[in-house]
Amino acid sequence: MIGGNYPYGGAIIMAALACVNSGAGLVTVATHKDNITALHSHLPEAMVFDMVEKDRLSEQITAADVVLMGPGLAEDDLAQTTFDVVWKTIKSKQTLIIDGSALNLLAKRKPALWPTKQIILTPHQKEWERLSGLTIPEQTETATQTALVHFPKETILVAKSHQTKIYQGQKIGHIQVGGPYQATGGMGDTLAGMIAGFVAQFYTDRFDVTAVAVFLHSYIADQLSKEAYVVLPTRISAEIARVMKEMSE
Amino acid sequence: MIGGNYPYGGAIIMAALACVNSGAGLVTVATHKDNITALHSHLPEAMVFDMVEKDRLSEQITAADVVLMGPGLAEDDLAQTTFDVVWKTIKSKQTLIIDGSALNLLAKRKPALWPTKQIILTPHQKEWERLSGLTIPEQTETATQTALVHFPKETILVAKSHQTKIYQGQKIGHIQVGGPYQATGGMGDTLAGMIAGFVAQFYTDRFDVTAVAVFLHSYIADQLSKEAYVVLPTRISAEIARVMKEMSE
Amino acid sequence: MIGGNYPYGGAIIMAALACVNSGAGLVTVATHKDNITALHSHLPEAMVFDMVEKDRLSEQITAADVVLMGPGLAEDDLAQTTFDVVWKTIKSKQTLIIDGSALNLLAKRKPALWPTKQIILTPHQKEWERLSGLTIPEQTETATQTALVHFPKETILVAKSHQTKIYQGQKIGHIQVGGPYQATGGMGDTLAGMIAGFVAQFYTDRFDVTAVAVFLHSYIADQLSKEAYVVLPTRISAEIARVMKEMSE
Amino acid sequence: MIGGNYPYGGAIIMAALACVNSGAGLVTVATHKDNITALHSHLPEAMVFDMVEKDRLSEQITAADVVLMGPGLAEDDLAQTTFDVVWKTIKSKQTLIIDGSALNLLAKRKPALWPTKQIILTPHQKEWERLSGLTIPEQTETATQTALVHFPKETILVAKSHQTKIYQGQKIGHIQVGGPYQATGGMGDTLAGMIAGFVAQFYTDRFDVTAVAVFLHSYIADQLSKEAYVVLPTRISAEIARVMKEMSE
Repeated sequence: MIGGNYPYGGAIIMAALACVNSGAGLVTVATHKDNITALHSHLPEAMVFDMVEKDRLSEQITAADVVLMGPGLAEDDLAQTTFDVVWKTIKSKQTLIIDGSALNLLAKRKPALWPTKQIILTPHQKEWERLSGLTIPEQTETATQTALVHFPKETILVAKSHQTKIYQGQKIGHIQVGGPYQATGGMGDTLAGMIAGFVAQFYTDRFDVTAVAVFLHSYIADQLSKEAYVVLPTRISAEIARVMKEMSE
Repeated sequence: MIGGNYPYGGAIIMAALACVNSGAGLVTVATHKDNITALHSHLPEAMVFDMVEKDRLSEQITAADVVLMGPGLAEDDLAQTTFDVVWKTIKSKQTLIIDGSALNLLAKRKPALWPTKQIILTPHQKEWERLSGLTIPEQTETATQTALVHFPKETILVAKSHQTKIYQGQKIGHIQVGGPYQATGGMGDTLAGMIAGFVAQFYTDRFDVTAVAVFLHSYIADQLSKEAYVVLPTRISAEIARVMKEMSE
Repeated sequence: MIGGNYPYGGAIIMAALACVNSGAGLVTVATHKDNITALHSHLPEAMVFDMVEKDRLSEQITAADVVLMGPGLAEDDLAQTTFDVVWKTIKSKQTLIIDGSALNLLAKRKPALWPTKQIILTPHQKEWERLSGLTIPEQTETATQTALVHFPKETILVAKSHQTKIYQGQKIGHIQVGGPYQATGGMGDTLAGMIAGFVAQFYTDRFDVTAVAVFLHSYIADQLSKEAYVVLPTRISAEIARVMKEMSE
Repeated sequence: MIGGNYPYGGAIIMAALACVNSGAGLVTVATHKDNITALHSHLPEAMVFDMVEKDRLSEQITAADVVLMGPGLAEDDLAQTTFDVVWKTIKSKQTLIIDGSALNLLAKRKPALWPTKQIILTPHQKEWERLSGLTIPEQTETATQTALVHFPKETILVAKSHQTKIYQGQKIGHIQVGGPYQATGGMGDTLAGMIAGFVAQFYTDRFDVTAVAVFLHSYIADQLSKEAYVVLPTRISAEIARVMKEMSE
């Protein structure tokens, strides 16, 4: 997991909490060095290193099944260098999830070549506008599907909005749960972490696995909202393992 | 939210916990850089940056609906510079909540011009003495109303004491709950954070919204005091979302 | 509260948790600067500053009703300088609780003059040996009472052991609860924090107040031990407010 | 406890949580200095110092009954120097538990002389390969017993795998609980900490004590897995004291 650049350290903490609680197994985080203590105070289960260490970053990317880049990555020089290391290092067997500010960096670069076809994009509407060129009102299902042609064929798009939809080629998934109690900052980071945790662990159809992660994220928020006017992302992460157990039975 | 200057880092942590748990949505904190890790260890949901970064501070203020300045701000050079950036940057559409040491800085400056009329002041008695010139025994309802004439007409005053009162022009609200179990340091910071969270989210009459925040703060303390001889501010914040849900039904 | 010098930062964290949860109201901690973030991550309710700031230390001591010096203070140069600032600054109206390594510093200094008569000492057996000259087998009730003659007349001695006893002049209090589940490091720090919190808040007879704090500390451990083979000091602090409520009814 | 070198700080945090919660009494941790705050934010009960301080390290090792070296120790220069200090300082009365990367350092050094015969090794299969020369398929019970001849006679081997086994001379213990919900990083660190806590506290047969620690670790994971699809190491540590109580009755 790569992110939590200054001053967005909290984003990768929330993503990592979601990922570990989803059952990812071994989670390694590259983040701003000033963020390491805060992350470990939440989650000693994750290995964490300073994002400026390019060699270690390459090595860890190479060892990973799934790479999530973006929660709190920012867009400064360090973010750009880090993006380039990821792009250069990742291989076709690996899944790359691109979230948050990494989507903006992607929009600027418009790469002709992709290091892997196993791409998952998790933009909110404004980020999808930058990526697709579609303004928010233009983001119909058809227009979005057409825009996806410019990405590798198997790309999964998690188009976050009040009614999050999941796209892959001609398939579209709709989520029927969720609500305004989900407005707290960090919901997207938590979702990205859950998707990473699910994709790393379940080897059935990637579209389905992503859809399940998106569904559970909203389902847990929904359940929590029955007893709380506000649902914090970290509270969602605290419930993932319990709800996965419930669902698995 | 602006505060938590050395050695008062805990104050802005408590204010931010209250604000996020009240449902503010996106919360950004400017604080002393040594306080960032502690804040993130409580609350990865908040974005946090070093208060010395004036450009970022201006930018974030400009992007905000509500600005809370003061919990643990201190009165040193950094606090004064920060106060000035806020004063210069804030616009008439924005709500400015002034709390803690920012009230003392305000008392010293006696500004002739106010950047916004949407002001909420949250002094305890000694801070109100400095602001109004009224000694504590002189702080009758009438005298306080008269003193308020020197502030923008729509100013809301939350006059904290054993019996907190809320003033706006000729309106006065009284809170009937609360008690000595509330004496722990940080209660005021928590209250300021709740007011910020409520004002940012509910667009009905600002006086009413403030009164509800003040009421709920004491109401939760009251409820908790039934099972605890001492009520910590952070325990109040942990209950806000649940009690808001209860009330909303 | 003064302590938590390197590498004993945890000690003052535990003492402060106990003190705030006992209802001390406003708690200020002087500690090693590297310990501030860890303390705030447990307890934003406390104001915390760097122990090397002598002016601030003097100022804060002057403002306090009760000063607890010692949990994790160590015995290095910084500890000694800090001890001297406390000794020079404290006044006869103030209560001084001396714990942990501050007791060893006291044993070395053998002061002829005491800045206040309101002294509470909380040694374990080895510390009491250094202070009184009595080896552990010699520490009978009579010998201990005789040794107390060399301290200010109103001094309260909390002689910690498997069967903690409290002495003041001819009075002796015995605690009938407690057990081996209390062996975890930090129990003494937690007790010192509770005594500080109780003395700061209850103005009846100081001997009785101290005895109640000592009793409650062991009583809570006893209760917790019914469901746990090991009782951590921080778990005791988490129960103080609830048990105080229970007892107060 | 020695470990938590950069970037593996979380490992020693988890080991220390397990150790203190097992009832070790006084726990001292030598770790990378950047890890001290995170450790204290989890566990003020432990005394923690910077692993580069060789004199303090020697002194603390000398004062200990049990030394656990390895969780997150890494294999860099600092790790190697630290390993050497331990090897030179430890005495025959002391128990030395070797875990994680310290096992790799041990494999490289192939020491002819051991400072103590009271050795506990806790390798996973790859680490045991490096230590014993047996490839994973070759690690049969007989081959493992034969390889153990090259270690001090009383050495206990905790051979971690899906079916962890405990060896000492001709004795072999099998654990019948455990499952895939235990895959999260840090399980081994937590187990090592539990073994240290048990060996430090129970003076019956060391093989039995180790076996009980290994059993309880898996037993707790098993219990937790009834309500959670994923079991985090830190959740296991949070249950140790309760389950020990349950078992002791």
